[in-house]
Amino acid sequence: MAKENTCSIQSTLSVIGDRWTMLILRDIFRGVRRFEQLRKDLGIAKNILSDRLNKLNEAGIIHQQEYQRNPVRKEYHLTDKGRDLSPSLIALMHWGDRWHANGKPPTILTHTKCGTPLKQLTHCPNCEIPVQPDQISSRPGNPNVLTDSR
Amino acid sequence: MAKENTCSIQSTLSVIGDRWTMLILRDIFRGVRRFEQLRKDLGIAKNILSDRLNKLNEAGIIHQQEYQRNPVRKEYHLTDKGRDLSPSLIALMHWGDRWHANGKPPTILTHTKCGTPLKQLTHCPNCEIPVQPDQISSRPGNPNVLTDSR
Repeated sequence: MAKENTCSIQSTLSVIGDRWTMLILRDIFRGVRRFEQLRKDLGIAKNILSDRLNKLNEAGIIHQQEYQRNPVRKEYHLTDKGRDLSPSLIALMHWGDRWHANGKPPTILTHTKCGTPLKQLTHCPNCEIPVQPDQISSRPGNPNVLTDSR
Repeated sequence: MAKENTCSIQSTLSVIGDRWTMLILRDIFRGVRRFEQLRKDLGIAKNILSDRLNKLNEAGIIHQQEYQRNPVRKEYHLTDKGRDLSPSLIALMHWGDRWHANGKPPTILTHTKCGTPLKQLTHCPNCEIPVQPDQISSRPGNPNVLTDSR
């Protein structure tokens, strides 16, 4: 495949760009932490769930934590790297709310402190304003990597 | 599958949750608009590219525009619904930058007007502050849809 390492969207998708993986992460964010709960909630086959959890563990996105000794039972928790996927899941969720929920979002994310529904903004720290898609440009970041000059 | 319509992440992924689809969208955002350019840039098989473009077209995310009459040649452009995927692609890109680019993001998104690198914020319109993942709660939005009471 061309330009393997030139795009961070591509490198992100190589780790989490599988539909089941995203749905498993969504559940762990919501507090679903045990294998059997995940399996039931998602209606996913055991071998697929097990495979995706192993990959998320290897990628450092989740880690296992023992909650019972005899027999040993484990829960899945997000690492810092996993928690940092929050903006991606929020963005995907808000898009679905806007375009596939007939104006009735099934779930609303709120600020815990005050209960206000949250917004996601692309923000310019210099101008201190939200920036719309047509006001976004891109430039090569890392001079050591071949970037696209199109 | 359980709870088919209760999550907007799930409904988003049912439309764009395929790795090729996301990469095609990334390219169209960057101005790659023609079939042959997309094929070369992504190293993707013609039949897969054709299939994904058809699906994006059916979902109302892209539309075709003729740029040549004889023979007829078409370009792919984003619709409003497609452009609205910008925050999702930015979120995925920034995560890859933070965790898979060794501190050297290959591409930097900037504010066209001033050239400052952009940030993405989850924002509380009431408190007027950025909100961190551990300060986010969720509540059922649409009372007509079965939501999770966990």
